[in-house]
Amino acid sequence: MKVVLDSPLDMHLHLRDGDMLKNVVKYSAECFAGAIIMPNLTPPLTTIKEIKAYKKRILDFAGGLEFEPYMTLFFKDSYDYDFLKEAKSFVKAVKLYPSGITTNSEGGVKNFDMDKLRGVFEAMSELGLVLSVHGETDGFVLDREKEFVDIYENIATSFKDLKIVMEHITDRRSAVLLEKYDNIYATVTLHHLLYTVNDLLGGSLKPHLFCKPIVKTPEDKDVLRELALEAHPKVMFGSDSAPHPKEKKECNGVAAGIFSAPVVLPALCELFEKYGKLDNLQKFVSDNAKKIYDIQPPKKEVVLEKDEFLVPNICGNVVPLCAGEKLLWRCSVGSG
Amino acid sequence: MKVVLDSPLDMHLHLRDGDMLKNVVKYSAECFAGAIIMPNLTPPLTTIKEIKAYKKRILDFAGGLEFEPYMTLFFKDSYDYDFLKEAKSFVKAVKLYPSGITTNSEGGVKNFDMDKLRGVFEAMSELGLVLSVHGETDGFVLDREKEFVDIYENIATSFKDLKIVMEHITDRRSAVLLEKYDNIYATVTLHHLLYTVNDLLGGSLKPHLFCKPIVKTPEDKDVLRELALEAHPKVMFGSDSAPHPKEKKECNGVAAGIFSAPVVLPALCELFEKYGKLDNLQKFVSDNAKKIYDIQPPKKEVVLEKDEFLVPNICGNVVPLCAGEKLLWRCSVGSG
Repeated sequence: MKVVLDSPLDMHLHLRDGDMLKNVVKYSAECFAGAIIMPNLTPPLTTIKEIKAYKKRILDFAGGLEFEPYMTLFFKDSYDYDFLKEAKSFVKAVKLYPSGITTNSEGGVKNFDMDKLRGVFEAMSELGLVLSVHGETDGFVLDREKEFVDIYENIATSFKDLKIVMEHITDRRSAVLLEKYDNIYATVTLHHLLYTVNDLLGGSLKPHLFCKPIVKTPEDKDVLRELALEAHPKVMFGSDSAPHPKEKKECNGVAAGIFSAPVVLPALCELFEKYGKLDNLQKFVSDNAKKIYDIQPPKKEVVLEKDEFLVPNICGNVVPLCAGEKLLWRCSVGSG
Repeated sequence: MKVVLDSPLDMHLHLRDGDMLKNVVKYSAECFAGAIIMPNLTPPLTTIKEIKAYKKRILDFAGGLEFEPYMTLFFKDSYDYDFLKEAKSFVKAVKLYPSGITTNSEGGVKNFDMDKLRGVFEAMSELGLVLSVHGETDGFVLDREKEFVDIYENIATSFKDLKIVMEHITDRRSAVLLEKYDNIYATVTLHHLLYTVNDLLGGSLKPHLFCKPIVKTPEDKDVLRELALEAHPKVMFGSDSAPHPKEKKECNGVAAGIFSAPVVLPALCELFEKYGKLDNLQKFVSDNAKKIYDIQPPKKEVVLEKDEFLVPNICGNVVPLCAGEKLLWRCSVGSG
């Protein structure tokens, strides 16, 4: 049995830089036609020059694989219209991080006063730049996304022409915003479709399942599964694959991030097949994103075969999601 | 400034065995007059011979320090009256673990049918043996203690003469049982008074704060603090200090347990002083326990001085709670 996906897209991807980029980019570039590339490098990407150079490094390391890195800017309230207009030729979205909320987000937004953010949001609305948001407060960790709902609502109602993507949603209480506001969209990761707090720490503690936002409750997972399996038209797949070297994950003070890139499509196939929803996978991993972002990725057929796939224990110096496990599907790549 | 405690007691302590026992026993034996010693060794302690031998090893390694190990039996529904009557001379409590719920609990109770447990509970009631309980189900990890409330209530109402200790309570929804049932008591740990899920994984993930039951919400912590700081007469201090070697804590698949023994009394002093409740510390760390368990520990004065205490980064091969931090109080020991 085979599933052939047309130009699958990963709408939320961390590729890092340097040796790590070199190590991980192939896992995404082989199986996806394109991806939205997160800008939280050290320092974060805030200039066109940096973005062009980073994109070049990505393509160089991808070694000729057919793969379009859709670049993003790290949100700053100081950006002006002229800068964003020029940036529009090089980026698809501007990624907003609340300050300090996750890896390399220290330079993010501290104050969600709409008057302070109005200039940038109005320019983005006019230019058709997507606002991509890591929506968490610094409150109690299980409620951080829920506590951010007010900010999402405030932005959505104040800037009706701004396309807002709630990145890696995890909470049933933020998922309701998809129905409430025309201009709110979302990405969903693989790991939030598969795991809950119980998997993270219900038995022994699993540092390789530690990410931000953290995995949530079974009820939250069920709501996310419904969105993904039904290919809700406002919902896109975004892996949030975020590699850290093994020594930063198995230590005292574990870095947040799950390296899922090597397994995302096989694991999604397994999940969608289990619930009899393979027919919806194409929309979830590509068609919805193409419409929401208005993009035409390179034509690329990705073939998933129902054939045992033993996930490697380590990819370079990074432990992947499902390390050492057997998945039911494997990825092979055709060409468009 | 000094605080002098009369015969402080740790009513829930894991000392392990062999080299680990040798390494950790001094931290408790120096600062406490006695402790309730948990029986979940490998294999767990289920015979009088094993308990006597284990007690001897503890005292040998304690090297003459004034310290009474109050031993416990690992609960089995197969114990008969005669066995428990004989055991009564050597143990103060029988510790009930639901099967598989924490370290070395595989041989615990699988079925909470009261008819199956009646024989043992009736014998314990008659003999005055305390039922010490790790009260968690195998449900969603944040609700496991709450889900066990029905079982606590069932035991409390079915066996009114049985003294039941909810060990290391963590959840405001089980704390209410203290008021509802005359025969329900509780121990509270230091770490559940200090930390919540946010400390465990709100920033980077802290494997040395991973324990079972896991740390809970700020609201739960507040309820536990109220019980401890007011020295609720049905509540005793029990550290649940549970050492694992560093390599089992900083790895993939982290063992549950916090090694708090080296810091418990200084940290409790700091907490009780902060809230102006130092006068209640004696009750919380000794007097309540003496009444509830009807024990007379060795006379031992433990002096806490308000003097900076730099917690070691490692104790043998175990990372202690607050490793590398500066506490405001330090322990020194007098004699009674």
